[in-house]
Amino acid sequence: MNFSSDTAAPAHPSVLEAMMRANAGPAPSYGADKITARVRTQLARVFETEDFDFWITPSGTAANALALACFCPPIASVICHQEAHIQMDERGAVEFFTGGGRLHLLPGEGAKISFDVFKDYLDEFDPSFVHGTPPAVLSLTNLTECGTAYTPDEVARFARRAKGGGLAVHMDGARFGNALVHTGASPAEMSWKAGVDVLTLGLTKTGALSCDIIILFGAAKAKGKELRARAKRAGHMPAKMRFLAAQAEAMLEGGLWLGLSAHANAMAQKLAAVFREDGIELAFDVQGNEVFALLDAHDIDKLQEDGAAFYAEWPGGSSRFVCSWATAEAEIDAVRETLKRAMRK
Amino acid sequence: MNFSSDTAAPAHPSVLEAMMRANAGPAPSYGADKITARVRTQLARVFETEDFDFWITPSGTAANALALACFCPPIASVICHQEAHIQMDERGAVEFFTGGGRLHLLPGEGAKISFDVFKDYLDEFDPSFVHGTPPAVLSLTNLTECGTAYTPDEVARFARRAKGGGLAVHMDGARFGNALVHTGASPAEMSWKAGVDVLTLGLTKTGALSCDIIILFGAAKAKGKELRARAKRAGHMPAKMRFLAAQAEAMLEGGLWLGLSAHANAMAQKLAAVFREDGIELAFDVQGNEVFALLDAHDIDKLQEDGAAFYAEWPGGSSRFVCSWATAEAEIDAVRETLKRAMRK
Amino acid sequence: MNFSSDTAAPAHPSVLEAMMRANAGPAPSYGADKITARVRTQLARVFETEDFDFWITPSGTAANALALACFCPPIASVICHQEAHIQMDERGAVEFFTGGGRLHLLPGEGAKISFDVFKDYLDEFDPSFVHGTPPAVLSLTNLTECGTAYTPDEVARFARRAKGGGLAVHMDGARFGNALVHTGASPAEMSWKAGVDVLTLGLTKTGALSCDIIILFGAAKAKGKELRARAKRAGHMPAKMRFLAAQAEAMLEGGLWLGLSAHANAMAQKLAAVFREDGIELAFDVQGNEVFALLDAHDIDKLQEDGAAFYAEWPGGSSRFVCSWATAEAEIDAVRETLKRAMRK
Amino acid sequence: MNFSSDTAAPAHPSVLEAMMRANAGPAPSYGADKITARVRTQLARVFETEDFDFWITPSGTAANALALACFCPPIASVICHQEAHIQMDERGAVEFFTGGGRLHLLPGEGAKISFDVFKDYLDEFDPSFVHGTPPAVLSLTNLTECGTAYTPDEVARFARRAKGGGLAVHMDGARFGNALVHTGASPAEMSWKAGVDVLTLGLTKTGALSCDIIILFGAAKAKGKELRARAKRAGHMPAKMRFLAAQAEAMLEGGLWLGLSAHANAMAQKLAAVFREDGIELAFDVQGNEVFALLDAHDIDKLQEDGAAFYAEWPGGSSRFVCSWATAEAEIDAVRETLKRAMRK
Repeated sequence: MNFSSDTAAPAHPSVLEAMMRANAGPAPSYGADKITARVRTQLARVFETEDFDFWITPSGTAANALALACFCPPIASVICHQEAHIQMDERGAVEFFTGGGRLHLLPGEGAKISFDVFKDYLDEFDPSFVHGTPPAVLSLTNLTECGTAYTPDEVARFARRAKGGGLAVHMDGARFGNALVHTGASPAEMSWKAGVDVLTLGLTKTGALSCDIIILFGAAKAKGKELRARAKRAGHMPAKMRFLAAQAEAMLEGGLWLGLSAHANAMAQKLAAVFREDGIELAFDVQGNEVFALLDAHDIDKLQEDGAAFYAEWPGGSSRFVCSWATAEAEIDAVRETLKRAMRK
Repeated sequence: MNFSSDTAAPAHPSVLEAMMRANAGPAPSYGADKITARVRTQLARVFETEDFDFWITPSGTAANALALACFCPPIASVICHQEAHIQMDERGAVEFFTGGGRLHLLPGEGAKISFDVFKDYLDEFDPSFVHGTPPAVLSLTNLTECGTAYTPDEVARFARRAKGGGLAVHMDGARFGNALVHTGASPAEMSWKAGVDVLTLGLTKTGALSCDIIILFGAAKAKGKELRARAKRAGHMPAKMRFLAAQAEAMLEGGLWLGLSAHANAMAQKLAAVFREDGIELAFDVQGNEVFALLDAHDIDKLQEDGAAFYAEWPGGSSRFVCSWATAEAEIDAVRETLKRAMRK
Repeated sequence: MNFSSDTAAPAHPSVLEAMMRANAGPAPSYGADKITARVRTQLARVFETEDFDFWITPSGTAANALALACFCPPIASVICHQEAHIQMDERGAVEFFTGGGRLHLLPGEGAKISFDVFKDYLDEFDPSFVHGTPPAVLSLTNLTECGTAYTPDEVARFARRAKGGGLAVHMDGARFGNALVHTGASPAEMSWKAGVDVLTLGLTKTGALSCDIIILFGAAKAKGKELRARAKRAGHMPAKMRFLAAQAEAMLEGGLWLGLSAHANAMAQKLAAVFREDGIELAFDVQGNEVFALLDAHDIDKLQEDGAAFYAEWPGGSSRFVCSWATAEAEIDAVRETLKRAMRK
Repeated sequence: MNFSSDTAAPAHPSVLEAMMRANAGPAPSYGADKITARVRTQLARVFETEDFDFWITPSGTAANALALACFCPPIASVICHQEAHIQMDERGAVEFFTGGGRLHLLPGEGAKISFDVFKDYLDEFDPSFVHGTPPAVLSLTNLTECGTAYTPDEVARFARRAKGGGLAVHMDGARFGNALVHTGASPAEMSWKAGVDVLTLGLTKTGALSCDIIILFGAAKAKGKELRARAKRAGHMPAKMRFLAAQAEAMLEGGLWLGLSAHANAMAQKLAAVFREDGIELAFDVQGNEVFALLDAHDIDKLQEDGAAFYAEWPGGSSRFVCSWATAEAEIDAVRETLKRAMRK
């Protein structure tokens, strides 16, 4: 019963096997190898476009901060949700990578930015006011921190308004696969077709060992050289780059990443059903692989006694359960059993 | 005949096997796992002290820059050799991580800082001169960029003078094992016993996949918390940290890293002998796994025609050949053959 | 009728006369002159302590950002009100000077931080959570952006809780004199005696030409050397420093700054009375030299037609009127006249 | 006999008188005032072009760092002489303002960059090498730190090569007037006509109180908005901006700045003649207002005994004497007297 995080899961066996295969003989360093070249081909297929550039990093924090630093100068800000990962969990990485840029926080239900608040903010901001810090990027997280998903239409609406104000659009897709599975959107529909300029395509939480890809779409491609320079400078151009590429290849091959995301989402739905069976309310609609249950102290105790790992005290008062590619149905059953026993008392 | 770099070599099989073993079941994220704990025990044994803290990063650039940022405030500088890797090959990572600190470059033969120049600089620097940028750290590279080694006594001499001036002492040990093998020094003798406060213990070039450890010795341990914060903020706290730890464990286990370094050094000596046989001069004494040969254009052409990979035009006019754990004696023989054929012409 | 800002006022004649006097013959550069030395003596008298250090800057933004950078490392944050000048009007200066530190915004009535929200935030923040950005400094603005004042007791209450959590306490005193006059507190009572570690003592808005002093009290004095280095590096160590010192001397001499502040406060009270006479509500209690009136569009038009300068659309819906040392009673009378005529229509 | 620095001189009376005049009544803040507008007209006349933008700062360090930050991204470097003021005397301001950019130091006689070394460096630098830090700006200092001057032709030669490599050209003109007077060049010939994109026009050392102007020429004008944002963020947009503008106006009016520069240069020539009379060698040709004399210890002692202020131990072994607008012929005579008495012993 490990629902602590999808990062607590091991890597999918295919990923490590690919790394083993990548380990045959010498290869050019720093991304000039053949596997990295093959990943380009795969990404083109997956995103239905040749008009992109990319770089692979070992962490979501690195991918987000590098991506944002290419679009947010030090004198500007990134608009994000007040509970976004870049605000809550990345120790000021954006401020660091941008050289002193700022996050501008907006509210919204279920960790989705309120469109109206966003629109009002842009409408009222006076770009000629030199004393204020103007927004340069809109960062949307999909799947959000509350396990909810933006649809492609919602993303497009945000992107249109953002671009009207000269902002670039970033998507933190640490759980991009989960959002795709839920909405039924294609990778292209959820990204560049909806107006996303730069995507953090997270594969680590999905099942890789350590692999989050920054993808620059369309005109944003022009930032490719700067992105590599920033990556190098941040220690994110490992010599044996091919092992990051091997992970990406294994995950993208045959749509493995989407299959693993689908499994995680399905497990979350089953877990949600278990809670509902017992009359336990959920804090947010389950649209991905995360379930936020409003448990009472008794249930929390019982689950922990029985060895369930989860965040008991998530901000806002719920408990967070995350399913992963490795979550077994037996773990869901075990939760059901524990809750039943808890109710009998 | 791949002598392009020790980073072009694959990882040692033991490293990947350890990663496979690490992949069984869930584990706490961000370094709270059991393997990371075991690495601590190993480092204590290897360095003969419990008085240290450490963090594992996936690249030497990350390890150097994070280490230096803990000791060099933005208003100060790091003294290093003018050909140091942090100056030549890390795209300003130190300037980035320190928030605008500076490298102060000193000359010296064979990429070893001239002690006299260093001493004179410190003697003459007036720390009360607010307009100047005072040095806060001395960074020594061992093995140096020219394949030469500092002895523990030399390191200690630098460290004493540095500390007399209030400077911390960093060692960039991207090829630390190679320097140990050459000098016969123990890890402790070459680091904390000689006055090193913080060591970048490179294992990637030695045979790992992606593993460079920052070790804080003695009082420098107090920087451990700041180091983790800076690592997180730089995207260098990957969720599945255990896979970095597994690499470290495999390399340190049974002294594998030193065995691999010894092999690389031995191959370099054989290669040097091949050059000397043919009357080809070497630019620097071979004290590690790098050979800098003063080849003529004809020899360079012949070697490249026969498929040898190496840096033909190293700054200063020599050609650089790097041996690794994976360098086979047959590769050295192939160089000998090529050069013989070249001479006959 | 110029109520646009206290920065729109000229400098007090005594200030320019002092600068003229300072211009006799050569003098040591960069703060080593006699006038700067005399300012130290004056500050000791004014703040009733010898236990301090200081530096003079030409702008409040410089003073705030330099002061905060000495106490907030790049991996941490500064707690301030969500309408604080450092958040709204300094173009990310704190993020810049701290090297990527962050502002953590808290709400509260009349631009005063809610003590309960502050206390709850500190109580709940887990300093061991490496992913979050911990607070390092509390910044209180007195007089606030809404013209309200913290009493020394209120400051002391905040400071005690802040220090319990290891935070330093900064006061943005761009309008410090105005807050003193309103509360009747002495400079010492409102600063170090209440727990303030570092004060931005603003004299520019009070009547100087360009003079905001950073004062480090007690143990914070240890940051003096770093402060000078940061000032130099930021271009805030002008060669002819004596002209900043001359301004400070003129303003502190004989309590001129407090007299000018008292005048500005008194004018604001008169202006407030004018609004109240006409049944115009005020958005905030007038506790300094600023009046926020809830004017209707008609009144705004009439005032502007008659040449009154003020911020018609302050965030929150009121209009801001600022009085200064140079505000004449005739200007208040002119407002009264205009409003009377406006009412007749 | 004060030859310590041109910054030790007082401000010219006209400058303070202009500030007094500027102090009549309220005025818009932050550069929107009438005096700042008039300075624009003056600069257009002085530089014979309308195609420019500008900003006024209170220090040369601020002007240089702000100017360079607009052209050197954090991933790049500024080429300058190894004795340039930005390297020796500004406490890492460029590294700070650029967000971690770097200075790349080049040698050359008399603090003038060797053109051949510069050319070779650009010729050999491989911009595709992501590990290296590419140059983005060339910064020339005129008058140099050794009191020598580049001619417009020399500047143009550097600028052509720089632009061929995609570099912007900056001139640190802290003593621009002195260089103009010596070379006979017009302001336009020495700046934009020679290929300078951004000039730090120093007036502080020339006779102002605190006034160094950044001028963006031609296409560089596009950086005007960014420059203001960076200035604001650095605390270099003082509210009562008009007092900086008043200084600029007074200095530019009727060519006062050039007259004062001519006086300082003439005094330096007289002083040089005094040294030569006594057979004292000069370290550098006197091409501005600085004289570097190779004095023996006896002469240094005598001069200091008689109250002469100068840098006795300038790097390189000479003693530095700086003349200013305020240097009196009597001071030169006093040096002559002292040296004569010294010789008799």
